[in-house]
Amino acid sequence: MEPGGVPVSAVLPAGGSGERLGGATPKQFCAVQGRPLVSYAVRAMERISWISDIIVVVSPENIETMKTIIEKFGHKRVTVVEGGITRHRSIFNGLKVFAEKEFSSHLLQKPEVVIIHDAVRPFVEEDILSKVVMAAKEHGAAGAIRPLVSTVVASAADGCLDHSLERARYRASEMPQAFLFDVIYEAYQQCTDYDLDYGTECLHLALKYCKTNAKLVEGTADLWKVTYKRDLYAAESIIKDNLSQEVCVITDANETVAQVGFLLPEYLKRQIKVETVSISQSRNDSHLQSIFSGQCYNFVCVNDKKCAIQETQQLVHMLEKSDIPLLHPVVLISVYLDISGNNSFSIGMEELASIKKFARETKKKNILVYGLLIQYKDPSLLQETVNSAAALIMALIKDRNPELIGQLLVA
Amino acid sequence: MEPGGVPVSAVLPAGGSGERLGGATPKQFCAVQGRPLVSYAVRAMERISWISDIIVVVSPENIETMKTIIEKFGHKRVTVVEGGITRHRSIFNGLKVFAEKEFSSHLLQKPEVVIIHDAVRPFVEEDILSKVVMAAKEHGAAGAIRPLVSTVVASAADGCLDHSLERARYRASEMPQAFLFDVIYEAYQQCTDYDLDYGTECLHLALKYCKTNAKLVEGTADLWKVTYKRDLYAAESIIKDNLSQEVCVITDANETVAQVGFLLPEYLKRQIKVETVSISQSRNDSHLQSIFSGQCYNFVCVNDKKCAIQETQQLVHMLEKSDIPLLHPVVLISVYLDISGNNSFSIGMEELASIKKFARETKKKNILVYGLLIQYKDPSLLQETVNSAAALIMALIKDRNPELIGQLLVA
Repeated sequence: MEPGGVPVSAVLPAGGSGERLGGATPKQFCAVQGRPLVSYAVRAMERISWISDIIVVVSPENIETMKTIIEKFGHKRVTVVEGGITRHRSIFNGLKVFAEKEFSSHLLQKPEVVIIHDAVRPFVEEDILSKVVMAAKEHGAAGAIRPLVSTVVASAADGCLDHSLERARYRASEMPQAFLFDVIYEAYQQCTDYDLDYGTECLHLALKYCKTNAKLVEGTADLWKVTYKRDLYAAESIIKDNLSQEVCVITDANETVAQVGFLLPEYLKRQIKVETVSISQSRNDSHLQSIFSGQCYNFVCVNDKKCAIQETQQLVHMLEKSDIPLLHPVVLISVYLDISGNNSFSIGMEELASIKKFARETKKKNILVYGLLIQYKDPSLLQETVNSAAALIMALIKDRNPELIGQLLVA
Repeated sequence: MEPGGVPVSAVLPAGGSGERLGGATPKQFCAVQGRPLVSYAVRAMERISWISDIIVVVSPENIETMKTIIEKFGHKRVTVVEGGITRHRSIFNGLKVFAEKEFSSHLLQKPEVVIIHDAVRPFVEEDILSKVVMAAKEHGAAGAIRPLVSTVVASAADGCLDHSLERARYRASEMPQAFLFDVIYEAYQQCTDYDLDYGTECLHLALKYCKTNAKLVEGTADLWKVTYKRDLYAAESIIKDNLSQEVCVITDANETVAQVGFLLPEYLKRQIKVETVSISQSRNDSHLQSIFSGQCYNFVCVNDKKCAIQETQQLVHMLEKSDIPLLHPVVLISVYLDISGNNSFSIGMEELASIKKFARETKKKNILVYGLLIQYKDPSLLQETVNSAAALIMALIKDRNPELIGQLLVA
């Protein structure tokens, strides 16, 4: 598991002002699904057991913000360090906590290899981290690269084309990068103020000051850097997509409910991975915990009780005890199966108001509750109704719209 | 208005296979809000009166698809041309329809300046098109550029870093580009098969074969090319954003309705531009037509009739007569103000089913109908209820979720 069995730590520069994004909040602190981007990058490191320390370097005015984020989202193994006025100075500060006693209250254990990764690249996977660490161990330095999307041109002094580069010979240098600690630390100690103030590329410093030719490692498309507002939109959609991979359907043993509880997962399975659980199983903590630990963020409870707040409440308690709603909002759809056969479905405004109130309270716990009515009247229409219910469930899961909580939809 | 008063036409290469997107559909034909990307690029050209002909170059197997798109979305001034096996060969084919009689059934009038733009850059504005055309007229060639997002590196034969480019000295070459027709056509006639097969950059050909140093014009961030799946997500969000800039609120003269009809726009105005219209005005075609022509894609009808399908139907007819729902889905929210004071709001399943049926029919016309109930019982709670209604309206407008049509939400 540990790449090469060497001690590894990570430095995340998060000091940028994000001016290209065109907003007041630096992009690393912009919230996506209620959580700042930097927290996604930290989480991406933290879930990897062989990364010991995670150093997040932020500008002085954001130190408290960052500490609050760490506490709120339960991050571990993170040290916050005050950055410098440029990217290189910030990374250098991050490295110093492993090497200079006077710089931090307690000196962290010096890693053999250090990963450098941007706080605004939230989707980095263990595979590429492991690859750059292995390559850094062998070559002294390594970095992820990607094919160029656009041709690169050089302009002359008059603003006209001087020449264009042959696209196939060049690559975009991305993150993560990794270095033997001694190589990159030496490079930073040796480099000039001009490098520290105007340079951007760590691989370049390792080459210039330590004669280390970094190994270039082909990365995947998801390494891209959140730079513009459109990238925030893309990140939001990708995260929603990732959260919509699995749903857990909970039903009780009542015969009619069980029939719908059987049909509904069949329809949902065409679009999403489905776990089915009976109510009695759901009362068994350990069974649900195993689903929680499988990172399921969507739950559907089917029952024949109008406004089944009690049933839903129990699941809310269990979710609260787990870590699930800490990192991402959880969707919980309470499906009410009306088997009365009445033509006129009637519900009091007070009942509707109490569902909404419950949903508003639950939202504070990062759980989004929605209601869905399925009328079981004409068995010949059941398939069509369940199909419509499945489409609504998928729409609620994919959208995770916090404004629609507490609404009762009708299939 | 016409930049420099010269005849201008445009060529859109749309022959790519979109393999980087990782789907079966080439990216230019991927639907965003129900419309293929290429249609957005065509529309961006078509709305500019000084662009005469728009040549879309597609691979042979997509010619029928492209013709269907042109018909379905009512595009004008478009000629579909069969592409070659590479991007350069496709652009060359596109240019030939202005110069070679044997190539097309009717020779199009040769423009003085030709714009080349990608079918997968949907957000190009008149300003940058005008700038590159003016610059091309003066310099013979011109192209939009953007700052590099990542450092560009050159790799050595062993896969290690050879050198990295100084980011400030280079730019990403983007689209649109523009050329004196004679310059780019000459360049294509002169260039080698190797250029046609392996090159990607028109500016390079103009420099190499016509000694024309293109003027580089700083473009805006929205010129980016839809390349990966995340770019499709971003495009979708940007288009939804653009469609959520304005709402038209229609109310009748009933006193209570009028009160809500006054309060609701006040709340909405905090988030969106609001036009208010009385029902009697809305029956006046010309007034609504002026709102339609202002590109409003969102309508809210407030009334005190349960299931006000007739009222909504009338607006649907008017929208159908306009061009509005042709290019983008229109959101139409029917707000039912319940002034009965009943605690128990009761609605028959058949009524709900008829709203859903109506919404399904209307969706075929690209109009998304949603219901929203506001209960007017306790005047002291009115502000809170209207606030909640405004939040739901904004959520429906921003999401434009086709699965939730025909639902009755409760504020």
